[in-house]
Amino acid sequence: MPDRLVAIGGNAGAMGAASQAKRMQPDLDVVAFERGRRTSYAACGVPFFVGGEVASLDALVARTPAEHERRGIDVRVGHEVVGVDLDRGVVSVRAVDGGGASEEGFDKLVMGTGARPLRPPLPGVDLPFVHGVQTLDDAEELLAEAERSGSEDVVVVGGGYIGLEMAEAFTRWGARVTVVESSPQVLRALDADMAELVSRAMDGFDIVVRTNVEVTGIEPAKVTTTAGELPADLVVLGIGVTPNSELARDAGIELGARNAIVVDEQQRTSADGVWAAGDCCDSFHRVLGERVHIPLGTVTNRQARVAGIDIAGGDATFAGVIGTAVTRVCRTEIGRTGLTEAEAERAGFTCRSAVIESTTRASYYPDAEPITVKLVAETTSGHVLGGQIVGGAGSAKRIDTIATAVWNEMTAEEMVNLDLAYAPPFSPVWDPVQTAARRLL
Amino acid sequence: MPDRLVAIGGNAGAMGAASQAKRMQPDLDVVAFERGRRTSYAACGVPFFVGGEVASLDALVARTPAEHERRGIDVRVGHEVVGVDLDRGVVSVRAVDGGGASEEGFDKLVMGTGARPLRPPLPGVDLPFVHGVQTLDDAEELLAEAERSGSEDVVVVGGGYIGLEMAEAFTRWGARVTVVESSPQVLRALDADMAELVSRAMDGFDIVVRTNVEVTGIEPAKVTTTAGELPADLVVLGIGVTPNSELARDAGIELGARNAIVVDEQQRTSADGVWAAGDCCDSFHRVLGERVHIPLGTVTNRQARVAGIDIAGGDATFAGVIGTAVTRVCRTEIGRTGLTEAEAERAGFTCRSAVIESTTRASYYPDAEPITVKLVAETTSGHVLGGQIVGGAGSAKRIDTIATAVWNEMTAEEMVNLDLAYAPPFSPVWDPVQTAARRLL
Repeated sequence: MPDRLVAIGGNAGAMGAASQAKRMQPDLDVVAFERGRRTSYAACGVPFFVGGEVASLDALVARTPAEHERRGIDVRVGHEVVGVDLDRGVVSVRAVDGGGASEEGFDKLVMGTGARPLRPPLPGVDLPFVHGVQTLDDAEELLAEAERSGSEDVVVVGGGYIGLEMAEAFTRWGARVTVVESSPQVLRALDADMAELVSRAMDGFDIVVRTNVEVTGIEPAKVTTTAGELPADLVVLGIGVTPNSELARDAGIELGARNAIVVDEQQRTSADGVWAAGDCCDSFHRVLGERVHIPLGTVTNRQARVAGIDIAGGDATFAGVIGTAVTRVCRTEIGRTGLTEAEAERAGFTCRSAVIESTTRASYYPDAEPITVKLVAETTSGHVLGGQIVGGAGSAKRIDTIATAVWNEMTAEEMVNLDLAYAPPFSPVWDPVQTAARRLL
Repeated sequence: MPDRLVAIGGNAGAMGAASQAKRMQPDLDVVAFERGRRTSYAACGVPFFVGGEVASLDALVARTPAEHERRGIDVRVGHEVVGVDLDRGVVSVRAVDGGGASEEGFDKLVMGTGARPLRPPLPGVDLPFVHGVQTLDDAEELLAEAERSGSEDVVVVGGGYIGLEMAEAFTRWGARVTVVESSPQVLRALDADMAELVSRAMDGFDIVVRTNVEVTGIEPAKVTTTAGELPADLVVLGIGVTPNSELARDAGIELGARNAIVVDEQQRTSADGVWAAGDCCDSFHRVLGERVHIPLGTVTNRQARVAGIDIAGGDATFAGVIGTAVTRVCRTEIGRTGLTEAEAERAGFTCRSAVIESTTRASYYPDAEPITVKLVAETTSGHVLGGQIVGGAGSAKRIDTIATAVWNEMTAEEMVNLDLAYAPPFSPVWDPVQTAARRLL
């Protein structure tokens, strides 16, 4: 009999791995359990659905259950795995709409249980108009709620990527939006000086940002904070996520950073025959030299590929992360990779930084937009540890050049030497990334 | 007495080096001779001036003679250096508008004499309506000629970057444009399959492209070719450039590839105390492992920086080129770096390639445009030797990621692992560059 692979989760982590394994090993018997109704979707697209830039949630689905079935994967949507017995090689499965639990045997198991929005222990946090956003089902509920209540006042708790994207989305949707952030700045993934540029852009969109303010409770129609009350008929939680790792923990599988499942370079967990991929597991940070939990779609997809290849007996290695991320808030593009200056200092690096202002195209070319680039380098080795970009259209994806440089441990001098592309519609003759490297020297 | 540096040429090569040296060594006595009227301008912007996207030639000037003077550089526009006597340490200078020659002494010399459009030995090539485009003065003449004659029929000889950019510019300007290219494809810097995508885009702009056709002569109001006559009241030469290296040669300085001045990693020529930078000199191609002549603005600026630092006694190395270039023709963005498949084969590499089609943004996101990426890798080492990109808005600058990977001798497997940036407005979850790398595996 062929091996049987059970995938826990119907999204990029587990399904990505299962699909990769099935492609390489067509006789593999694959069954996947997904609690929700959809598979293989782009949760990152949710804010753009709420903001009206994407017309339907179905557009975010890369592969439906039926499409997976056609590729030979037995997909059971509406089914939740509630227990894993490693000794017996069985999972306990329960239909979400009721009915009893059943057991399903496996030879190999891949966990892609994802993560869920953190819910702070606040009075009122479980009121029905308080929403986290992780799955498409969450998004559907959220928008239904917003339409039902005709939300005029939206409070976003937390000024991270998702918080700010949702803030902009609800502004486009027509609501008054306030972002409440307990720390002194939004986007703590950036240094304060770079985050300040984003705050200014949000001012122009009439989004109220309240930093250094803590939410103390939620009541019908309002949010109470350390700086007074805010009217609210909808509250969005954007203070981060926590891995759905309880199933793994209860099965005796090792957890690490932030309770994420610990995996090795082949995405194997501490249990034989069990892999994990995506937001439920950790990864190795190449610059920090330690394991971290970075729940991002790119990381999930790369991990899933490696897990699937390894499951099928192939050869692949997940070479780690450096914290590259990009977003757009209020027409301002934001990219980051490696370590910020604050992160580098916290990690004990002796470093220096440079910030430059330039333009996305030759300054004389139409629609040249401002771009600010910050680079951070280790003082002794000269290695570039990270970079941040904030600017107009055409800014953010330049972070990939910095990411590739950081990945290869290039110095600022080596970055100045790089043979990057120039033509007036695309760049000044020195790309802003290289102008920042020159300033570092 | 302080050292005296003479700069031959008023543009990025010589002036860039002179400015860098003067910044580092303020007591350096610097005098620069420029044959034309302008200094430090972006010649790459000329097609966009002709096409009306840039309003004035002065917008292309980064630093005027007066601005250089304020920084302590003695700039003599309208003055041409006609001889270099290395033994006596003097240059012979002649005013362009007449008058006698004079001699100027130097301790150090930097040559930035640039390049000039090739003029094929054709009957009629010296007729007044036949133009090459290199300097802003050329551009001014060209546009004056076009306006005087009310050019309706423009023939561009040569389908390289400049040829195609000028073809589009004259289409925007209102002329009927035909490009005559002697080889079977336009853009020989690309493989034929990728160049074909550009040809298709040009079709949509009503630019007639005649490949495999040679120009045999030019007569008043027409161009004769191996495929018949073409009406022409303006002819633009776009078949490449040749270094202005006669001055160096006559002084006994060594020339190399395509008669470019041979320089070392500090931009020193074969003569003591003489540096060169820009289109007049050669550079080391890191992938080919040989010296080449690649006349591009980015190369010039990087070389000028190194020359200037070395002149001032500092420490810098020009680490070479990998042939990165980018342009936009008829709304289609084009990028290339490293070696094409054809170039790799000619150079004796055993290689394989992959071509993928993807989108510039998440496929469901508004204004996602098609993008085609080709990667070429060496079979044995797996090193990525080069990449090519053709696509819609947001495509071309992704070539920088490939360039940085090629620069660092990454393999396709390593590129798949790279931590690149993703958000729906910027990329599919696998950046097209990585999708191409996956296809290579």
